[in-house]
Amino acid sequence: MPAFVFDLDGTLVDTVQPHTVIWQKVLAEARIVVPANRIQFWIGAGSRKLALAAARRAKKSIEPSDLDVMRGKHQAMMAEWANPPVILPGAVGLLRELRDRGIRYGIATSGRHPAVGHALEALQVPAEIPLITFHDVTRNKPHPECLLRCAEKMKVPPSDCIMVGDAVWDILAARNAGMLPVGIRTGGASPRRLRRAGAARLFRDPRHLWFELDSLLNA
Amino acid sequence: MPAFVFDLDGTLVDTVQPHTVIWQKVLAEARIVVPANRIQFWIGAGSRKLALAAARRAKKSIEPSDLDVMRGKHQAMMAEWANPPVILPGAVGLLRELRDRGIRYGIATSGRHPAVGHALEALQVPAEIPLITFHDVTRNKPHPECLLRCAEKMKVPPSDCIMVGDAVWDILAARNAGMLPVGIRTGGASPRRLRRAGAARLFRDPRHLWFELDSLLNA
Repeated sequence: MPAFVFDLDGTLVDTVQPHTVIWQKVLAEARIVVPANRIQFWIGAGSRKLALAAARRAKKSIEPSDLDVMRGKHQAMMAEWANPPVILPGAVGLLRELRDRGIRYGIATSGRHPAVGHALEALQVPAEIPLITFHDVTRNKPHPECLLRCAEKMKVPPSDCIMVGDAVWDILAARNAGMLPVGIRTGGASPRRLRRAGAARLFRDPRHLWFELDSLLNA
Repeated sequence: MPAFVFDLDGTLVDTVQPHTVIWQKVLAEARIVVPANRIQFWIGAGSRKLALAAARRAKKSIEPSDLDVMRGKHQAMMAEWANPPVILPGAVGLLRELRDRGIRYGIATSGRHPAVGHALEALQVPAEIPLITFHDVTRNKPHPECLLRCAEKMKVPPSDCIMVGDAVWDILAARNAGMLPVGIRTGGASPRRLRRAGAARLFRDPRHLWFELDSLLNA
């Protein structure tokens, strides 16, 4: 029986756009002006990579202390704008069905506390569900570390895991971890880009995956 | 010599994501909870269509007075979040070159004052440039009214106009007006969706169009 590893932002909760707009604002306050679609592309790879990529594009530099200030501002604004976050269609029902059917799942996110905690609460995810966050790993997606740690916690070999994510980083991390990569189209990445990264299947939203669950499990 | 009709939000200024996040928040306050990607899809078709589409999806209803309250909140938050708006790469240079070469252009937007004014100021658009906004038309895109009014103001027949926009609504409005539809990929619509709507050419951002200006004028 396969197990699922889920990304969180953009996959189960509808937070990619707030993350994008807030990062754009925080970066602009540091005179790093970057188009929103470039920022959106980096959501899910961790704030360090996002900020460094934005700075590189704007031909500016960032000190580690700047990054801490930016993270603090971003966190405060997210707490104001996306707490509780909007749940993506079908996310709660999908997770409930997996649990009812005894199918294991875990969450592997580049996100941080307390935002991750608020999202899991809104999603009604029980405390015993394996969770790997920014705080548990040394390298973010597309490095497979957080996915492999999640599989380990679930006691399932990576090759039996289906990784579900909305970003190119999730799909690449899944491939790097030896998991089946499945894309969700709620984070703004184009179907073409997700397919090119290696997504074996694509779903409109968690509800669509939920309805197709048996076709995914029997593939 | 062809003339250009430009959309504003998502085409010249980077405001689609703030519009999306703010509309999502304003609608959620009225208990109309809709995924951000659905809201983003409706940006550019006018706030009335956006709010009605969101309400329909959430199986709620909206009174005209509710809509006025929502617009007021949205406007206030946009003034806080996107004033001045971030300019998309190449937008100022492209408009300057058109002017230097004596190529006419106008702006046709479903946006409203004062946000439109702030955007035009940030873009350094001179006061004499033809401008059609929400306030000048009875029907929003994809209806061709605002594009046709813009062509009229420029004294150029619609068939000599190149309409540049980021949303499906712009491309459809261009076709309805008999203009050449050109897509800009900064508003989040997938290339596939823009091509299907009828975009004859697609550009990454205004800078890309600027660099390809001669190939577009000579096509």
